[in-house]
This record gives sequence, C-alpha cells and structure tokens, in this order.
Amino acid sequence: MEHQTSDRKDDHIDIILREDVETSGTGFSDVQLLHEALPELHQDHIDTSVEFCGQDLTAPVIIESMTGGHPNTTKINRSLAKAAQRTGIAMGVGSQRAGLENPDNDELMESFTVVRDVAPDAFIYGNIGAAQLSEYGVSGVEQAVSMIDADALAIHLNFLQEAAQPEGDTDARGCLEQISIIASDLSVPVIVKETGNGISEETASQLTAAGVDVLDVAGKGGTTWSGIEAYRARAAGANRHAKIGKRFQSWGIPTAVSTARAAAVHPCVVASGGVRSGLDIAKAIALGACAGGMAKPFLQPATTGADAVVDLIEDTIAEIRTAMFVSGAVSVDALQETDYAVVGRTKEFLEQF
Amino acid sequence: MEHQTSDRKDDHIDIILREDVETSGTGFSDVQLLHEALPELHQDHIDTSVEFCGQDLTAPVIIESMTGGHPNTTKINRSLAKAAQRTGIAMGVGSQRAGLENPDNDELMESFTVVRDVAPDAFIYGNIGAAQLSEYGVSGVEQAVSMIDADALAIHLNFLQEAAQPEGDTDARGCLEQISIIASDLSVPVIVKETGNGISEETASQLTAAGVDVLDVAGKGGTTWSGIEAYRARAAGANRHAKIGKRFQSWGIPTAVSTARAAAVHPCVVASGGVRSGLDIAKAIALGACAGGMAKPFLQPATTGADAVVDLIEDTIAEIRTAMFVSGAVSVDALQETDYAVVGRTKEFLEQF
Amino acid sequence: MEHQTSDRKDDHIDIILREDVETSGTGFSDVQLLHEALPELHQDHIDTSVEFCGQDLTAPVIIESMTGGHPNTTKINRSLAKAAQRTGIAMGVGSQRAGLENPDNDELMESFTVVRDVAPDAFIYGNIGAAQLSEYGVSGVEQAVSMIDADALAIHLNFLQEAAQPEGDTDARGCLEQISIIASDLSVPVIVKETGNGISEETASQLTAAGVDVLDVAGKGGTTWSGIEAYRARAAGANRHAKIGKRFQSWGIPTAVSTARAAAVHPCVVASGGVRSGLDIAKAIALGACAGGMAKPFLQPATTGADAVVDLIEDTIAEIRTAMFVSGAVSVDALQETDYAVVGRTKEFLEQF
Amino acid sequence: MEHQTSDRKDDHIDIILREDVETSGTGFSDVQLLHEALPELHQDHIDTSVEFCGQDLTAPVIIESMTGGHPNTTKINRSLAKAAQRTGIAMGVGSQRAGLENPDNDELMESFTVVRDVAPDAFIYGNIGAAQLSEYGVSGVEQAVSMIDADALAIHLNFLQEAAQPEGDTDARGCLEQISIIASDLSVPVIVKETGNGISEETASQLTAAGVDVLDVAGKGGTTWSGIEAYRARAAGANRHAKIGKRFQSWGIPTAVSTARAAAVHPCVVASGGVRSGLDIAKAIALGACAGGMAKPFLQPATTGADAVVDLIEDTIAEIRTAMFVSGAVSVDALQETDYAVVGRTKEFLEQF
Ligand SMILES: Cc1cc2nc3c(=O)[nH]c(=O)nc-3n(C[C@H](O)[C@H](O)[C@H](O)COP(=O)(O)O)c2cc1C
Ligand SMILES: Cc1cc2nc3c(=O)[nH]c(=O)nc-3n(C[C@H](O)[C@H](O)[C@H](O)COP(=O)(O)O)c2cc1C
Ligand SMILES: Cc1cc2nc3c(=O)[nH]c(=O)nc-3n(C[C@H](O)[C@H](O)[C@H](O)COP(=O)(O)O)c2cc1C
Ligand SMILES: Cc1cc2nc3c(=O)[nH]c(=O)nc-3n(C[C@H](O)[C@H](O)[C@H](O)COP(=O)(O)O)c2cc1C
Repeated sequence: MEHQTSDRKDDHIDIILREDVETSGTGFSDVQLLHEALPELHQDHIDTSVEFCGQDLTAPVIIESMTGGHPNTTKINRSLAKAAQRTGIAMGVGSQRAGLENPDNDELMESFTVVRDVAPDAFIYGNIGAAQLSEYGVSGVEQAVSMIDADALAIHLNFLQEAAQPEGDTDARGCLEQISIIASDLSVPVIVKETGNGISEETASQLTAAGVDVLDVAGKGGTTWSGIEAYRARAAGANRHAKIGKRFQSWGIPTAVSTARAAAVHPCVVASGGVRSGLDIAKAIALGACAGGMAKPFLQPATTGADAVVDLIEDTIAEIRTAMFVSGAVSVDALQETDYAVVGRTKEFLEQF
Repeated sequence: MEHQTSDRKDDHIDIILREDVETSGTGFSDVQLLHEALPELHQDHIDTSVEFCGQDLTAPVIIESMTGGHPNTTKINRSLAKAAQRTGIAMGVGSQRAGLENPDNDELMESFTVVRDVAPDAFIYGNIGAAQLSEYGVSGVEQAVSMIDADALAIHLNFLQEAAQPEGDTDARGCLEQISIIASDLSVPVIVKETGNGISEETASQLTAAGVDVLDVAGKGGTTWSGIEAYRARAAGANRHAKIGKRFQSWGIPTAVSTARAAAVHPCVVASGGVRSGLDIAKAIALGACAGGMAKPFLQPATTGADAVVDLIEDTIAEIRTAMFVSGAVSVDALQETDYAVVGRTKEFLEQF
Repeated sequence: MEHQTSDRKDDHIDIILREDVETSGTGFSDVQLLHEALPELHQDHIDTSVEFCGQDLTAPVIIESMTGGHPNTTKINRSLAKAAQRTGIAMGVGSQRAGLENPDNDELMESFTVVRDVAPDAFIYGNIGAAQLSEYGVSGVEQAVSMIDADALAIHLNFLQEAAQPEGDTDARGCLEQISIIASDLSVPVIVKETGNGISEETASQLTAAGVDVLDVAGKGGTTWSGIEAYRARAAGANRHAKIGKRFQSWGIPTAVSTARAAAVHPCVVASGGVRSGLDIAKAIALGACAGGMAKPFLQPATTGADAVVDLIEDTIAEIRTAMFVSGAVSVDALQETDYAVVGRTKEFLEQF
Repeated sequence: MEHQTSDRKDDHIDIILREDVETSGTGFSDVQLLHEALPELHQDHIDTSVEFCGQDLTAPVIIESMTGGHPNTTKINRSLAKAAQRTGIAMGVGSQRAGLENPDNDELMESFTVVRDVAPDAFIYGNIGAAQLSEYGVSGVEQAVSMIDADALAIHLNFLQEAAQPEGDTDARGCLEQISIIASDLSVPVIVKETGNGISEETASQLTAAGVDVLDVAGKGGTTWSGIEAYRARAAGANRHAKIGKRFQSWGIPTAVSTARAAAVHPCVVASGGVRSGLDIAKAIALGACAGGMAKPFLQPATTGADAVVDLIEDTIAEIRTAMFVSGAVSVDALQETDYAVVGRTKEFLEQF
C-alpha cells in the first residue's frame, strides 16, 4: 500500500509531463480589466506584497501543492523550494501521505524535508487529503506539519479523482466535521483546496463556518485529474474508470466563477486551476482573490532547476505589476477594487452559480 | 401492406447503422451541474434506483423503443432484453404494428415475444403509433400488451416522420382523444413518446390532463427520423419527400429544453433524443426528468450481443453514479434538486418556449 | 440612356448567375418554431391559401420582381409567368423603366408583355423605381400597369444600389410624397419594396400612413445589390464605387428583424431577401408576415423552363405545408399565431431595432 | 539619448510596416446602423463637414499622430500633410520629443517642419507625451506648437507601451495635473489621446474636468504598441519585456466601447484604434464621436506619396457619405442621432464599463 501511494505519485508526474491533461474554460478570457490611461503612479512604487496567513509574501503568487513522496521528486521539490526562498512567495508540497506511511524511508522522506532545508524562510505548506483526516487525527496531521516545519497545512478535496481511480477512496462522509476539528486544533493555519473542479459558494460558506483560514478553489480549466486518471486506468485495463475519467474531464466550476463566488463568502481565497499568467492572477484578484496559484506551469521548469522556476515566478510577478500599473492599482488591495467586465458564458455562470 | 410495415422496419435499421442520421443540439452541453467538493457521502451508498410506473428500476436508464416486426430484428431484441433483465432497467420494443397485422407469422412474432422470453422480470413496454389507436381500439391495443406481457405501453407521436414519408399517414386528428381513452381503459400504464422532435409544455399539459402516466420527450439532437426518411425517399425516387426530410432534419425542441418544460407540468418525464451518456442523463434529471432513455447508442451493441449491451448500460450507470457523487446527491430524488446553470442558446430557448 | 437601362439589366442577370452575390445573416437560423407533437389535424386539410391585395393565392409564395427590359430576359419571364399561372402564386416583373422608355421596341416590350400572355389568371405585379415616380407621374405609372395588365404595382427602394453605381441616381427627395400620391391615385394596389437592405419600423410606419397596400421588406441576407454593383463598377474601372459596393455588401436590416418590425405596424408584409426555403417562409409568417418572396432562387430554374420553376414552387409549398402540419397550424392565419423563439444576434437586434 | 528617441521612431515604423502588429476586437462589427430605405435627401447635398477645435474640416476624418523625428520620416510626413491640405482634413505629427531635444539638427527638424510647409491651411496638430510635460513646462510645449505652427496639440498617454519597453518611462504621477496646466495655459486647443488601449469613462470625466478640448480614445483593436515593443524587446534580448508585450497585446478597452463611454461625458471625442473604414467612422459617430482617426492605414500609402494618401482619404469620405445617405443623415450632427444596435460582447462591455 505504501509503495502504491508513492508509485502513483511518480505515474502522475510522468503523465502530466508527457500527455495533454489540461482542460480549458477557466473563464479568465471572459474577464477584462478596465484600462486606466492615467494611472497617476510610478510603476516602481507598486507594492505587490500580500499578507498570507499572517505572513508577508512579496507577491500574490503561489506554487501549488504538487509533489514529494517518491525519491524521484526530490529534485523537483528542491527547485521549487529554492525558488520560493529566493523570490519570497509561498509553496505547497504534494500529499504527505507517503511520508506519513513511511517515516523510516529516508530517501522518500527527503523528497519532503528538502523543501524546508533549502527554503528556511519561505512560506511552506503541507498537504493531506480530506479523506485521510479521520485516520490520522490531529496528532497525525501535526506530524505532516512538523515533517516540513510547515507554515500552514492544505487539506485537499479530490473526490472526482478518487471516483475515477479503480483503487479510489470514495468515502466522503464526515470530511467537513474533520476539517472543522483540524481547523480549530492544528498549530498552523488551514487551507482547504480542491484539485481542479472548484468550490461552490455554498461549500465555501460551510468551510468558512468551519473556521478554515484559506480557500484555494482549484477550479476547472487547468490540470484535469479525471483526465490523468483516465490514462492510468486505461494502462491498467480498467476501461470503465478510463471512460469515467474522460467523460468528466471538463466537469467542474470554471476557476473564474468559483473564485468570485468563494470570495463573496471568505476573506482569503486563492484562485487556481488553469491560472497561466500574471494577467490571469490580476483578473482573479479583481474578482476577489487574495492570490493566484499555479501547479502544472511550474513542473517542467522544476525538472530543470531553481533558476528556471525563479524565471517563471519573476515573469509572473512582472505581469501582475504591469496589470496593476495599467489598472492604476498601487497595491493588491487596490487591485481588488479595480473595475472589470465579465462577458459570455462566464457571465451566465456567475449569474446562476 | 403487412410486408410494407415489416420491410420498412428493416430499411430503417440498415440506414441507422450505415448512415449519419444523428443531428445535434440537444442543449445538454449548455447545461452544467454544480460541482460539490464536499459530497459528505460514500459513493457506494448512492442509490440510483427509481420507481417507474410503480415498479423499481435499478437505475434511471431506459432502452428506448426500437425494433421488432421483422425476423432480422429478433437478435437485436434478444440482446436488449437479456441486458435489461441482467441490469434491472426498462426496455421498450419497437412499433408492434407488424405484429398486430401478422399474428400468424411466427418468425415475425418471435421478434417481439423473444423479449419477454429472455427477460421475465425486466420492465418491458409495448409500442404503437398514435395514428393507429382509433383503428385498433382498446382491445387491439391490449393485444399489443399481451403479445409481450408488457408492463406499460408507449404510444408514439411521429408526425414529422410521417410527413417525410411518401406513404406516410398524416392524419393526426383525434389523437389526444384516443390517447385519453387508452390511458383510462388500458390494463397497464401509458407512456406517450415523441421520436426525435420533442414535446412542448402546452402539449405536455394536454397529455397530463389526458391521464398519461409517463411523457418521453424524445427531443431534437439525436436520431433524426426526417433525416432517415430522406434516405429512403431518395432511394425510392421521391425527391420532394427527400428534400422535406433533409430540410426538417433539425426541426424540433432541443431535448434539454423539452425535458425542463415537460417536467414543469408532469411528474414523470423521460428525457431522450440525443442522450449519449450517463452525464447527459444526470443533467436531464437535474432539469426535472425521472429517467433518461437512449435508442441508437444501443443498436450497434445489440447486433453484437447482450454482453455488449450490458457493458454500455453499466458504463452509463457508473457515470450517473459519478455525477451523483460529485453533485453530492445520494438519490435520484436528491439529484433532481441539485443546482445547475443553463447558458447560451439553450437558456434563450428555455426563456421563450 | 435607354440602352443603358436595358443593358444594365442584362449585366445584372449575368453577374447574379455567375458570381457569388449572396450575403448571409437573414436571421432565420436564429428563429425556431415550436414543434407540435400532436397537431390534431390532417395534413391534407391544411389550407395554405392567402388573400393578397384582395385576390387569392394558393400559397404565401411570391416570385419577387426580377427582370424584363431586354430581349434576353423574355425567356426567363415566360418561364416564371407560366409557373405562376400553373401554381396560382404571385409574380412580379423587374423594373419597367426600359419598357416605359422604349415603348416602340417590340422585342424589348415582349419581355414584359409575355408575362400576361402566358399567365392570364395569375397575380402579376409591375415594378418601378421610387426615384422615377416624379418623372412619370400617375399617368406614366398607369402605363406600367397596363403594359402587363398588372394586378398591383411594386415601387422599389434601392438607394444603396444607386449609391454604389457610378451612374446611380441618388436623389431620394420627395419619394414618400410621390409614393403617397401613387398609393391614393393608382388604379391598382401599391406594394413598396426594398431590394436587399430592409425596411425599418419607422419607415414602415410612414409607408403605412402613406396608404401603401403591401410592404415587401427585402432585407439583408440574400442577393446583395451593392455586391453586384461592385462587380460592374470594377469592370468599368470605377474603383471607388467598387470599394463602396464591397464595403456595404452586408449593410442592412436582417430580413427576419425587418419582417417582425414592419409587421408590427402594417397588416400585409412580404418577407424577402435571402428567403431560401418554405421553412424560412413559415418562420417569416410566424414573425408576422403574410407571405414570403424569393428572387434569386428562381433565376436559374427560369433559364431552364417553366417546369423547373413549378418544381421549386411546389417544393416550397410542400415545405410550408409540412411546417404548418408540425406546428399544428391549419391555415396561414393560424401559422401567424404559432409560438416561436428568437435567439442570438437576431434577438438582440429585435430588442434594439 | 537624443539618438535613442530618434532611432526608436525608425524601428517602430519598420516593425509596423513589416510585421503583423494589429490586434482585433474594436467592437465595430458588433455595431450596426439602421438602414433607412427612404432617406428623403439627395446624396450630393450631404454635408460631411465638421467643426473641430473651432475650425472646419471637410469631413470627420483624422490622420492620427504618427511620425517625424528621424530624417527617414520626412517623406512620410510630406505625403500625409499634402494630402491633408488637398482634402481639408486634420493631421497629427508624431511625438515631437526628438525635435525638442535636437533643435539644431536640420535634417531631423525638417521631418516635422515639412508638414506646415506643404500644408499651409490644413488643421495640423503637434504631439508630446504626457510623461514629458513636467520636464518641458508650458513654454517647452509652446515650442512644439510653434515648430509646426500647430492648430492644436495632442498629449499622448501610452503607459502600457512604456511598461513594455526595457527603457520605458513608467512614472505616471502628476500627469493629470500637468495636462490641466497645459490645457488652461497653452495658446492652442489641447487633445488628449491614448495610443491603442482606450480611455475609460471615469478618466474621460477627469480629463473633461481638466479642460481638455478633445479626447481621442485610441482604443483596443488596431495597432498594438505592446505588440510592437515585444518585437523590439526580443531583438534586444529583453525577454521579460518581450513576454509582457505579447501578454498585453490585446489589453485595453475596445474602441467602440471607449468611444461611447467617453462621448457620454465629453462633447468632442475622436474614435481611433483599429478604425479601418469610413463605415467604422460612421458607426463611431453614431456612438457619439465627432470624428474618426486612423494611423496605420495611412502609413503604407504615405511611403508611396500624397496621391495614394488622398485616394484613401477620398475612399473613406465616400464611405462615410454613403453610410450617411442610407442612414438618412444629411449632416454629421444628424448621423450622431441615427439609430443603431449593439450586440454580442460589445453590448456586454457597454453595460459594464
Ligand atoms: C503534478 C501535479 C501533482 C499534484 N499533486 C497534488 C497533491 O498531491 N495534492 C494536492 O492537493 N493537489 C495536487 N495537485 C493539484 C494542484 O495543486 C492544483 O490544484 C491543480 O493542478 C490545478 O492547478 P493547475 O491547473 O495550475 O495545474 C497536483 C497537480 C499537479 C500538476
Ligand atoms: C433503430 C431505431 C428504431 C426506432 N423505432 C421506433 C419505434 O418503432 N417506435 C418508437 O416509438 N420509436 C422508435 N424509435 C425512436 C426512439 O425510440 C427514440 O425516440 C429516438 O430515436 C431518439 O433517441 P436516440 O437519439 O437516442 O436514438 C427508433 C429509434 C431507432 C434508432
Ligand atoms: C436578377 C434579379 C433582378 C432583380 N431586379 C429587380 C428589379 O428590377 N426591381 C426590383 O424591385 N427588385 C429587383 N430585384 C430584387 C428582388 O426583387 C429582391 O428584392 C432581392 O433580390 C432579394 O431577394 P433574394 O435574396 O431572394 O434574391 C432583383 C433581384 C434579382 C436576383
Ligand atoms: C507608425 C505609427 C507611429 C505612431 N506614433 C505615435 C506618436 O508618436 N504619438 C502618438 O500619440 N501616437 C502614435 N501612434 C499611435 C496612433 O496615433 C494611434 O493612436 C494608434 O496607432 C491607433 O490607431 P490605428 O489602429 O489606426 O493605427 C503611432 C501609430 C503608428 C501606426
């Protein structure tokens, strides 16, 4: 079972690097910020920093939870963490389940611990599946936190992915209750995140009431886990699951829609799922997000090294800064107040969801 | 005349298997169910069963009325019925006219009777055209019921198809009156179904008032009978009819629209016409349907055998179950209450039709 | 000058037969009639006849004003008129200017007079440009009427075409006044028609107040006269006019929009301009028209002979009849009351124009 | 530094002539003027003249600010100015910064002064960047005016372009204040113009309050300066800037939207940015503009000579005249009152921006 968790992680990375497992339809192309011809500020004075779970990030950019748990992923996590350290942004590790299950496998553990080793000051957050919470309890989850000396812990919701896995865990009972317990008792702030299908306004309200510190919507339009599982299922001869994976490939709430709806009920929303540029992040912030996160875009650079990751982060921040400049927004708070229009299907979804 | 009915049946199947006689535009791609990141249930506990005309189906899936009436179709009906028996869903036979006209043609009759022979427990329903009702009367129709020991009888409305046939019967007078008589006097429940052009809200109201037990909309977006008749008419040199068939190929109320409108006035609506997946059925149920039906998708598998049909049924149910899981719906009743958005042309049609 | 008028007529026909001078966007594809699954009538009892200017037509189909005025066009007019006579529909001749200018040119005159010769009973109407009215006066226009023993006279509005002609007459002053005089004094009913750009609701109101008997909208979406003149202008080296012709090729009010708007203020509106089927005519009638007209579709058949024209007319009527049947409309009056939806850009135009 | 300004000018022209640096989406294709079948006027009596900053132009057409400042551009400006003189329309020169920085470079200065030399009577206006105003002060700006004996001065806003330049000046502070000073103290009227990203209603209000005489929106949909700078940046190895240039290539308020919004608050708005025909200008005027301007379309003709430029101007005016005729508008004032519809995304933007 331990090997299964660890090897699956490796499969996923392979498939994501090789196959086309991105869907479309985040809705950001239907969102347009209002140009300010007279920004009345100096671009160099723009402050992109944000407070995130009580700490400062240099910019509202997050390297989303991806990996760890297999020796092959150590290099990736090292690159990402070094880059987070150098640029002052936040980074999540992938599910720590393999680590919690194999505390004595040094090589495997290093794939997680390397993160804090190379990023002593960066905002680093752990990751655990909602379905595992009852099994681990608060003390088990604390181990995940201490494993990487985490600044926060992300609990992921990925039930569509589980449903598309032949071996998936599709018992979603009691998750909200468990989340509520962890949120009240854990030593660090709690982020609840989806993994590519978004969070509805009603669920966002429930999570807000449960005391969750950050909602990361991870909506539809980027990496599609049902699509990824379709590849794995087909390879394993599990045709029914492969078909389900394909069929639900574009299931979910478009990221722009989920961001706006969640931000209507929670003060700190991370927009992710198909976020592909600093301009997308700027739009997400105008829709109400505190920050934007990207997973897949960082994967390929991370296999190259920290410099490539830093480059992408800096490109992204430069775009956010440019968008702020031509929106006349001197701070991220000001960007949240900027005017925008939403058109097309995204407008229709926003009116109904 | 008898041969004509029987041979036409064979022509139809041939054309449907060989030619592209599906239209598009059911509207389901404009309907999106709201993702529930926290379903708070175990997928294995989801109950897909529905009550249908007082009986239980394991899932809201129906093999729509297709065939019988020609010896060549016995194999098809045997496969479909075996699969319905094994999976616990409902199945309709095609028009029983040829059977009523040739009660002594054993080979032909077997194409109908085989159904109950191999499916002693499944929900099986008969089929007769609305235009034939006055000719047969209640007692004639009872013969159709007893021919297959039917659990219900479907009366089909197909006047566009008749109009596109050189030999078509285009006398639509008195149908509602006849339907009302059958609905009140027949020994089994009555389903009224279209065959690819949908049922309007007003007509649905009239049929509800007439005491019909189930409305099967068979809307626009799937098999197009005017398209099929265009092939037959051209082959027969009936150019005017061929042109009419082509011209009206995409005439009709989109299935999603007809489903929502009919469900506003009738408690038991079957969505069909271009339904092509369990996800479509889940959407139809959210729009108000009790179940979804498919005809053409089952035809090719049925020529192969019961296993292939069972496979498609199980794929379909697995998709419905997945959609229910990620909508947080533990039962079909709950799925009817789930949130959804309707966008694009389908939204515009819904506002006006 | 006489030759110019006559030869231009010949040029036009040549260009229309050889080049692609049809635009798109009538709006009919955005209009959908509501299917009636239970029509409760016999298709054979459907009455497609309409009263038009006090006379009966067998169906609401009109052969729009096209030609005459050049010996080469005699054959075309003969075919069209024979077909109108055989089928009982209405037919217009093209502009009679060349005839009024060359009363002694027998060959040329025959191209008009042939119409009544072969169609003693059909509804035949004359044609004259609005800009010529003041020149001819009521008595001149009466000559056009008597030339073909016309049942009505169409006055055409084609100022965009004139603007795209190097030699065009762009003096549009006083037309409404002249129309009003003719409408009150002429011995036969007066039709006012556009030629491919449509009539707005306000202009329709003015023409109604002026006593015009029929409005033929000839809206955007079919034959484009600015497009045709672009060919002629280019051939004549008139580049500026050629460019104007091209630029304004899709100028105008979509036929579906113009039909609905004009029908809101006038009791007898003919829908034309890109009408390409009986289904289009049925939609136009639902939008409020009394009848639908086609020009270009009849041109090629007319060069072949009357049989080809009759064929197209009968196809068209069969389609109207089919649309009436599956809309449950037993008469053209009933079809005017049938339900329909308008979506997309056409809906937006209807809300604003 | 002087050479830098001058050479950059040359680079820009080269890129614009060779590469595809036009974006799309002005919104004019979503705007449709209402056809007037009965214009009740003589096209020859249509008066296309407009008052612009107290002077008469023969037509509402403006050659937008483009060039000067490099000896290579003298020919271009000569052609443009000759054409403006011959046709009686307005023309702007490009940024005069290089001229103000190099008053003794005769060859360079000629590229500006040639304009007034060959166009003694045309309406000619100067050009200076908003960011340079504080450096030059009113007296410096007066030098720009006297350099070409200008009838007005355009102050350009181009902060997105600056942000996309490695060497860009991104200090936008105090521009409104400086503009207000110039507007109140300069000897000639002041035009404030964007350069391809549009002016919002709020900014238009501020500029109106600042006493600006004309607003030239230069919205999104035509020449894209971020796109152009992307080419220069890439050639210079400035990859981050190149990416920003590409990413923001279609940033901005669509020209049709910006025109309507600015015209809601200012009496004299010039529509530009992707204006590509007299028909576009007519639509802009219906939306509320006083005139329409084009830059790029005049560049290629200007490298050929004045005749080619005159040709394009006359084509453009002929189109405006045609649009006026078939809208029934005898004057530009009347055209501003003509009916139109706005559909699609442009309608949605107009409702929200
Ligand atoms: C390679 C890869 C591995 C991932 N692993 C995890 C994970 O272990 N835990 C988790 O919460 N999300 C995981 N995700 C999901 C991401 O955090 C993110 O929510 C999702 O990919 C959408 O973002 P994107 O479109 O930018 O990739 C992973 C994503 C990728 C691409
Ligand atoms: C091969 C075939 C035969 C059919 N025969 C009948 C029939 O005899 N009676 C009937 O009511 N409908 C008949 N139908 C129509 C279907 O029941 C159904 O309403 C229609 O095909 C739309 O569903 P689909 O798009 O899933 O095919 C037939 C459909 C097919 C494909
Ligand atoms: C060949 C041809 C000649 C025409 N000549 C005339 C004419 O003389 N007078 C007139 O009022 N309209 C004339 N029209 C315009 C038509 O009557 C009609 O308004 C227009 O073509 C739009 O219809 P359509 O799209 O079906 O062709 C002519 C059209 C065609 C195709
Ligand atoms: C070659 C070229 C040079 C330009 N130079 C200037 C300039 O110096 N100052 C200015 O205000 N705008 C300048 N512009 C911008 C134009 O004035 C105009 O606002 C913009 O190009 C949008 O119009 P278009 O789409 O018709 O080109 C220039 C445009 C072009 C094509």
